[in-house]
Amino acid sequence: MFIIGEKINGMFKNVSEAIATKNKLIIQELAKKQLDAGADALDVNVGPASAEPLADMEWLITTIREVTDKPIAVDTTKLAVMEKGLSLAGPGSILNSTSGQKEKLDILIPLAKKYNAKVIALTMTKSGVPANAEARLEIAANIVASAMEYGLEIENLFIDAIILPVNVAQDHAPAVLETIKQCKLICDPPPKTILGLSNVSQKTVDRPLVDRTFLVMALASGLDAAICNPLDKELMDSMITAELLLGKQLYCDSYLEAYRKK
Amino acid sequence: MFIIGEKINGMFKNVSEAIATKNKLIIQELAKKQLDAGADALDVNVGPASAEPLADMEWLITTIREVTDKPIAVDTTKLAVMEKGLSLAGPGSILNSTSGQKEKLDILIPLAKKYNAKVIALTMTKSGVPANAEARLEIAANIVASAMEYGLEIENLFIDAIILPVNVAQDHAPAVLETIKQCKLICDPPPKTILGLSNVSQKTVDRPLVDRTFLVMALASGLDAAICNPLDKELMDSMITAELLLGKQLYCDSYLEAYRKK
Repeated sequence: MFIIGEKINGMFKNVSEAIATKNKLIIQELAKKQLDAGADALDVNVGPASAEPLADMEWLITTIREVTDKPIAVDTTKLAVMEKGLSLAGPGSILNSTSGQKEKLDILIPLAKKYNAKVIALTMTKSGVPANAEARLEIAANIVASAMEYGLEIENLFIDAIILPVNVAQDHAPAVLETIKQCKLICDPPPKTILGLSNVSQKTVDRPLVDRTFLVMALASGLDAAICNPLDKELMDSMITAELLLGKQLYCDSYLEAYRKK
Repeated sequence: MFIIGEKINGMFKNVSEAIATKNKLIIQELAKKQLDAGADALDVNVGPASAEPLADMEWLITTIREVTDKPIAVDTTKLAVMEKGLSLAGPGSILNSTSGQKEKLDILIPLAKKYNAKVIALTMTKSGVPANAEARLEIAANIVASAMEYGLEIENLFIDAIILPVNVAQDHAPAVLETIKQCKLICDPPPKTILGLSNVSQKTVDRPLVDRTFLVMALASGLDAAICNPLDKELMDSMITAELLLGKQLYCDSYLEAYRKK
């Protein structure tokens, strides 16, 4: 599966402090540690408290680019910050994210195309996140139609069915699993599916347990990618074992180590 | 989910020794510990080395019945031992197991009916365990037809899609998950599905990790029951969390404790 490391986000105190004090080392260490732990890409978000999101995004990406050329998921709701981020991150980067209403798609999908970026698209609109799978899938189908309209290759489109915290929206979890399964039926080849995983466990007592359990369930439902914490070793062990059981890698006694050495 | 504790089995050294020395305490402690840990029923198997399987099954069941009247899954391939076990275990017990060929079903399903027992039926025949889901489902459909023929209520039928060890039959795991999903389409109400879980991890290096990962994947695929080790706390935590995420119990911060107090 494709893992996007979530740790470079201004909502974490160490990151917001590093941004404020321009401490490159903290950011670069976070980048390298996540990649070493199995991340295929790095999410980058300046955080809600940033007073200068454009400058902060520029500083974060140039700082990361000094140590790795792995894909960066530019994570912002601000159009100017997104364009700046994609231009700095380079081809193969990821637009994170657009929602599913037409007026957003009409702006953000062409922007992603302009910079050869992949797209994460949320199954929500101005009306919010639907509670059931059917309404999520209807939005997903509209997103796919927009991608086709603008010539974005469907393999570069990640549908995020939006998992809400289980403690406030428990009925959403089965709907998300069902959406992941049925996304594969929208078109052929189908869009990829992704989750912003750690949202499921917000304010629960044992967050890692909830995270890894939902990730394994989502993998069994066909999930292709996740934005999550690759530094959580038990999460990664669970993911690797689920992939083994799905036949996505060959069994050997040291399959966990073999995966990590790849 | 319905948990059948697997620990009273003569293949375990402590159990075979208890049988040999007629040490009731060991068996009764194993029964109580598994039930306290969340088992809904107890599997009972005299083990492959038993020289007197009929007498040993009788001793095991009468020993267990001194401390609990919870359902017993009588686990044997010998017809006389099965009949003795079901008669002693009483109504609500479980025949474990029949395979899917007609000549077995014609004997074992009427036997289960005679003792008001539920039935675990394996998706295998004389030809062995099929590698793909389609052939497993064909056997499952034949089992359902036999159950209907003999008037066994379908809610008392557990289809076991047979998970083989991932280190020797890796391609079976996805087929088992697919079988579990599609079993729900055979009839309405559908048969229940069950797994002999720990088989999946035979001779792997980290057995509990493989067991709990596959259990969570099977739950996401619709699994109803498992024969497993309820004394594995991490396995039970994973199972309870998966059920929470499937909406099978209401969220509260102490949902793990709440489940265990039930």
